[in-house]
Amino acid sequence: MSEEKKIPYKIYLEESEMPTQWYNVRADMKNKPAPLLNPATKKPMSFDELRAVFCDELVRQELDDTTAYFDIPAEIQDFYKMYRPSPLVRAYFLEKALDTPAKIYYKFEGNNTSGSHKLNSAIAQAYYAKKQGLKGVTTETGAGQWGTALSMACSYFDLDCRVYMVKVSYEQKPFRREVMRTYGASVTPSPSETTKVGQKILAEHPGTSGSLGCAISEAVEAATSMEGYRYVLGSVLNQVLLHQSIIGLETKAALKKYDIQPDIIIGCAGGGSNLGGLISPFAGEMLRGEANYRIIAVEPASCPSLTRGRFAYDYCDTGMICPLAKMYTLGSGFIPSSNHAGGLRYHGMSSVVSQLYHDGLMEAVSVEQTQVFKAAEQFARVEGTLPAPESSHAIRVAIDEALKCKETGEEKTIVFGLTGTGYFDMVAYQKYNDGVMTDYIPTDADLQPGFASLPDVE
Amino acid sequence: MSEEKKIPYKIYLEESEMPTQWYNVRADMKNKPAPLLNPATKKPMSFDELRAVFCDELVRQELDDTTAYFDIPAEIQDFYKMYRPSPLVRAYFLEKALDTPAKIYYKFEGNNTSGSHKLNSAIAQAYYAKKQGLKGVTTETGAGQWGTALSMACSYFDLDCRVYMVKVSYEQKPFRREVMRTYGASVTPSPSETTKVGQKILAEHPGTSGSLGCAISEAVEAATSMEGYRYVLGSVLNQVLLHQSIIGLETKAALKKYDIQPDIIIGCAGGGSNLGGLISPFAGEMLRGEANYRIIAVEPASCPSLTRGRFAYDYCDTGMICPLAKMYTLGSGFIPSSNHAGGLRYHGMSSVVSQLYHDGLMEAVSVEQTQVFKAAEQFARVEGTLPAPESSHAIRVAIDEALKCKETGEEKTIVFGLTGTGYFDMVAYQKYNDGVMTDYIPTDADLQPGFASLPDVE
Repeated sequence: MSEEKKIPYKIYLEESEMPTQWYNVRADMKNKPAPLLNPATKKPMSFDELRAVFCDELVRQELDDTTAYFDIPAEIQDFYKMYRPSPLVRAYFLEKALDTPAKIYYKFEGNNTSGSHKLNSAIAQAYYAKKQGLKGVTTETGAGQWGTALSMACSYFDLDCRVYMVKVSYEQKPFRREVMRTYGASVTPSPSETTKVGQKILAEHPGTSGSLGCAISEAVEAATSMEGYRYVLGSVLNQVLLHQSIIGLETKAALKKYDIQPDIIIGCAGGGSNLGGLISPFAGEMLRGEANYRIIAVEPASCPSLTRGRFAYDYCDTGMICPLAKMYTLGSGFIPSSNHAGGLRYHGMSSVVSQLYHDGLMEAVSVEQTQVFKAAEQFARVEGTLPAPESSHAIRVAIDEALKCKETGEEKTIVFGLTGTGYFDMVAYQKYNDGVMTDYIPTDADLQPGFASLPDVE
Repeated sequence: MSEEKKIPYKIYLEESEMPTQWYNVRADMKNKPAPLLNPATKKPMSFDELRAVFCDELVRQELDDTTAYFDIPAEIQDFYKMYRPSPLVRAYFLEKALDTPAKIYYKFEGNNTSGSHKLNSAIAQAYYAKKQGLKGVTTETGAGQWGTALSMACSYFDLDCRVYMVKVSYEQKPFRREVMRTYGASVTPSPSETTKVGQKILAEHPGTSGSLGCAISEAVEAATSMEGYRYVLGSVLNQVLLHQSIIGLETKAALKKYDIQPDIIIGCAGGGSNLGGLISPFAGEMLRGEANYRIIAVEPASCPSLTRGRFAYDYCDTGMICPLAKMYTLGSGFIPSSNHAGGLRYHGMSSVVSQLYHDGLMEAVSVEQTQVFKAAEQFARVEGTLPAPESSHAIRVAIDEALKCKETGEEKTIVFGLTGTGYFDMVAYQKYNDGVMTDYIPTDADLQPGFASLPDVE
């Protein structure tokens, strides 16, 4: 106990201890993630093909799998100081509630107005757009975390920000929409009459409430049809994982400050941006043979891309207009069950995370949502922070691992990523509070339409 | 600039630097705040009269105007470590946007799930209730910040928490309600059939959407009619200001760490809990003749208790069942305009704050709400945090003072309290974003009904 007393509830890095470079785990990977393919030619996407859609510098980051460290521009370092370093919290209260010998830490990314880690990449993408002299960027958003983060970043750099928000969310989540508007973004419910693809979908399905795939298609069309605009994306891409490595780098620095050696590292997995960012520096050590960790990706049982998906080339969007990526996927035609409450509903998974998983550097587990909300409630009550449903997947498994330690008496050190807060997810919490939340595990037959939608590549 | 470079964006105290005592500014006041009076006898409320409603230890704190420091119990210090110390933020980005030579700092109390400073007193009140062996506590809540804070505190100490929530908020702010339920509180829309006073009001006004005064009456009746329950309150009372002194004590410690001498200290004023907590240690220095500051209380022009109210004994609640307090008040019969968007709609003001203001230790200004939201928007865009409407009153005046420095070239150091975040106030932000927010300044005639409701004491 005396040795433990030295570790505070929250470990904050000094400004001088904050990372000044992002880490690109691909540089240390022997088996590199497979390249993005042009869906028409099935050939790797070239720099010139990608720069029509993305900013030049971001394309360079996307394609570079040999440079290990990228300097974080001074302007982005300044912005990071607004809400970073995020605390690495020792979950003393949770440990006590579980009566476990395990030591639990979590890296909390929710202490900013976007409410999640998404801001780490949003500010980088806005910066490079501004530096390239662009007028603005377009993007899609579902529940709104990414759109909020991007609107904050664009406001800071005085960039026009156009968000296509899935219509059902636009109407049912007006608060998120208003946060984006407060930061000066224009928010359009998707599908809309402002794009050709939107007009087409509205003509075919007049009453549709929209989908993320449709919103992506509209955002990409808008970006490529306006002078001085590019499209930006909040997850899945290599560039996003690069920016999100700030999470893992800060975590490592905070652990090192108190000579803490983690045994297990846990993150929730949707598109893979938070998980990839958190684990990158740790996976890098494993790849270089310097250390060994148990890394666990946690996904919803209702959208189990790692645990039940196929490792194959697939479309990144349901509209099938984006490049093909090799990843663990349920197929772009997979549609999550309507009872699915949290995020993490993406059919695929970052190519980097997919390759690391394929090469045995991490495990993956899937969990059911009522158990996830049970963990969320327990965590909220003892640790004080109301977690986002996405983050609560990691909490569930962290608690399960800590309870295993209680059985075995092992004093393992567990680190998990708490990606954000649940303030805008109270509809899901209400379902849980009212006892009407249900679980769904797709049968093998349920997964067939998704697999049938996979393109015929390699 | 070289000297400034040493000051980080966020000043965090180490755990070892956190205050271990609350400061009771009344001990240093020559003119003590007038005592609470029994509304029936017009005599000062005794310990025994008050302990029927409040926990014993809280009554002692309420009545003690000579003890300068109270030890913070270890259990509360532990809980504080969950979300404190709160950062003292150097508003570099705001300074740059304003192009002012002023140095601006804000103490940010919103980084916890209740979203405000209210948790500082909620945990203390829950602790003393638990220590006394009580089963639970009752309270009222309007918009829900206080109810959320209390539900978190009660969950931590496993106390039953019964919240009477103004019916219109219960229905229109379901998210706040669900946060409270997630923390295990029972939330009852007020007026309700669960109390006699609720039944009476419902019989007289069948369609009423409730009021804070009615909810207070129900909560007090519930507490005093159940074995093992007491009533708790989130503002106005001396005990609350005592607990909230943690804000000012941390602010002083953080300033001292970097040898910063503030010139102006600004806080928003509703019931006075945040303002009183922030300024207590500074006012104490002034009272002891050790330092001099400009202290500015900011209130809404539509509810101007300090700037246009009377310094008189008044009822603390609109139901007129609570003790009489001497304070700056608009009269318990004053009803804020329906266009009033933010909080800070209380008719009176903490007796401590009122006395300090009466004795010339602070100034007060009132501001109109469209100007408040304009400041909120500007702050959100450059400092990243979406502020609560209440807190934005302080932002407005901090910006105004910084702009005066720009005119005069003075390098004043301004400190203000940022009490919370605005995530649950997006309806008000939407009004502002849509350009339909209006201002209201009551005429002298508008204030007459409130003044006419003042009791005939002294």
